[in-house]
Amino acid sequence: MTGAAPVPRSMVIDHIGTLVSNAPELGTGELGELPGAALVVEDGRVAWAGPRERAPGADTRVDAGGRCVIPGFVDSHSHIVFAGDRSREFASRMSGQPYEAGGIRATVAATRAATDGALLDTATRLLREARAQGTTTLEIKSGYGLSVRDEERCLRVAGRLSEEVTFLGGHLVPPEYAADPDGYVELVTGPMLRACAPHARWVDVFCERGAFGEEASRRILTAGQRHGLRARVHGNQLGEGPGVRLAVELGAASVDHCSYLGPDDIDALAQSARGGAGPATVATLLPGVDFCTRQRYPDARALLDAGATVALASDCNPGSCYSSSMAFCVALAVRELGMTPEEALWAATAGGARALRRDDVGHLGVGARADLTLLDAPNPLYLAYRPGVPQVAAVYKDGDLVSGTP
Amino acid sequence: MTGAAPVPRSMVIDHIGTLVSNAPELGTGELGELPGAALVVEDGRVAWAGPRERAPGADTRVDAGGRCVIPGFVDSHSHIVFAGDRSREFASRMSGQPYEAGGIRATVAATRAATDGALLDTATRLLREARAQGTTTLEIKSGYGLSVRDEERCLRVAGRLSEEVTFLGGHLVPPEYAADPDGYVELVTGPMLRACAPHARWVDVFCERGAFGEEASRRILTAGQRHGLRARVHGNQLGEGPGVRLAVELGAASVDHCSYLGPDDIDALAQSARGGAGPATVATLLPGVDFCTRQRYPDARALLDAGATVALASDCNPGSCYSSSMAFCVALAVRELGMTPEEALWAATAGGARALRRDDVGHLGVGARADLTLLDAPNPLYLAYRPGVPQVAAVYKDGDLVSGTP
Ligand SMILES: [Zn+2]
Ligand SMILES: [Zn+2]
Repeated sequence: MTGAAPVPRSMVIDHIGTLVSNAPELGTGELGELPGAALVVEDGRVAWAGPRERAPGADTRVDAGGRCVIPGFVDSHSHIVFAGDRSREFASRMSGQPYEAGGIRATVAATRAATDGALLDTATRLLREARAQGTTTLEIKSGYGLSVRDEERCLRVAGRLSEEVTFLGGHLVPPEYAADPDGYVELVTGPMLRACAPHARWVDVFCERGAFGEEASRRILTAGQRHGLRARVHGNQLGEGPGVRLAVELGAASVDHCSYLGPDDIDALAQSARGGAGPATVATLLPGVDFCTRQRYPDARALLDAGATVALASDCNPGSCYSSSMAFCVALAVRELGMTPEEALWAATAGGARALRRDDVGHLGVGARADLTLLDAPNPLYLAYRPGVPQVAAVYKDGDLVSGTP
Repeated sequence: MTGAAPVPRSMVIDHIGTLVSNAPELGTGELGELPGAALVVEDGRVAWAGPRERAPGADTRVDAGGRCVIPGFVDSHSHIVFAGDRSREFASRMSGQPYEAGGIRATVAATRAATDGALLDTATRLLREARAQGTTTLEIKSGYGLSVRDEERCLRVAGRLSEEVTFLGGHLVPPEYAADPDGYVELVTGPMLRACAPHARWVDVFCERGAFGEEASRRILTAGQRHGLRARVHGNQLGEGPGVRLAVELGAASVDHCSYLGPDDIDALAQSARGGAGPATVATLLPGVDFCTRQRYPDARALLDAGATVALASDCNPGSCYSSSMAFCVALAVRELGMTPEEALWAATAGGARALRRDDVGHLGVGARADLTLLDAPNPLYLAYRPGVPQVAAVYKDGDLVSGTP
């Protein structure tokens, strides 16, 4: 072998109006905010960040023109592998029909009938759409296959697009098992799990009335853990229930929805954030769902005040929230959940990283992946201040421009 | 003079998945919805629309690829001529500070200090941003100058960007008249109006506690009418008040906000829509404001059920709603105002046209301006179904592509 090792290519993003690093050592507050900043990327990682007048040289230079740079959004909850159109169900729900988990069945039938290619096309389009809106890490769940074959192929599709793939065979009991829900749990924890575990990092369950109860949820999650998957939970969306406490008990990385919490639930989440038994079980709030289903919003203020770790995610899916916009989640969190703009931005970036137990994304401290977004805005308040307005100018993942123009 | 007259250039937009025409004769319902449609543009106007298999030929062809075409949004209420940054005021309001009209004063000071060029730059950027989101008609108000010189130059800036320019000297009593509010009304109805009327089409007043009462509002509106301006009113935003009834009494084209209405107000608006005394006074709802100020939403359902004409507009302004997104207004109207997705889309297009007394925009019937938007969506329900997601692929104004790629 001859020839030199490749020279690391470096890039400086200069003239940043406000850098949000989520690295408190780099600036002020939890967001580690720094005005007049620069950031140097080398080999896809943050090599340096600080006041621009002290920035080291680099091979290439991007001028942020006084605009704001934030970490890429870490969207820890999506269901983008599916087929079918449910826009009419949405319209009829908005005219007064209640949201019920059963609507999922329409998507299951369409997904089973779709080719792998069609599933990949839709998911790819949605991933690109999310990326164009500043999302650089996107968790993707199965859960519309609900058979060994269809769950496995949905996970393979997800794995083409993301490292954060979640097995959600426990999304709903499919129609063919309506008379034998225990038999479906046997399937999920047996042959389906064996086929699916190699293609996933996470196991998840919809622990909710109408889906899976406490014992079935526990069986599904612990079976997944025995197969090397890590646990996350859908819980407490439509009413109080055992989801949150089960998630904390099993050391799940996150429990998602949390719209209906009792004092014990909040305590359990706060306790887990104080450490002791390992990393926190994050309360991941999905306000887009509550917007699109006209349900009660979770009380982020109570969670934050108690000391729980809070994340925001989109839950992008064709039924209860067909939005991939993390900026919209931030705006809703500020309007409806009692979060400050700063807390909401942290939850949509660093919070999402905690919910995926990742320390390489969700912040722009030295060594982090250079996953970042240049906003057409002077400061990060604009995400909530300008709801609905596309403000993402350019998105970098691992230091590469993946969307927009800087 | 020699040479032939220019040959009219025609274009067909073919393979439209769903055409929303707002022309009931072209399709079904109020939206005049037609699946499998084509639309022919000649000389900037709609020359033909109907089933694609019957479309006449044209010089050029655009393939909509099964996507949806809607009329361009008609945003009948904005305040985009201003200077200064109020993002921190927004953040502190979201942390519990009440919204008060007085915040406008910060913008007035910055606007007075700004050059014409700076004002035009900001307004141009916001107009382009609105256009990229599908807005093809945008009303623009003055109201941050509040002196003869500054109101006039704000109107000149607005006139560079829109035909729909509104004199809003009656936005707020400026600090230098705090001790003499009547003196300010004298100024507005005298020298300011004389300087401003040539540059405006409309006169507007903020008829609200803390701004202008019933008699002052009447004086401002009627003085404007005597100078050839047509009336529109800000009313009933922060509490019940005389705004709606005054607007109907004076034959105003629209009364905007309408968050607090008594039965008499709803009656008056419904009566005006039933005709008799001329065209309706439209109830223009601005749900983005209620979102961004955490105020009560208006009850569109009650207005529609009573027979009133309802429009949706952004109110894009740096204080109470810094959003230019009409799609966001549509989504909010469906979630919060009791409108169906179809009613909301009509209100954001045809409704806005009624609020500006325009019959050439807001619909795609034959003869209308070819102001239209191609959505990255198969049907118009997607605007509400996918909140926060940019779905505008391409925007045409007078038949010319002004944003995006078809
Ligand atoms: Zn989910
Ligand atoms: Zn206004």
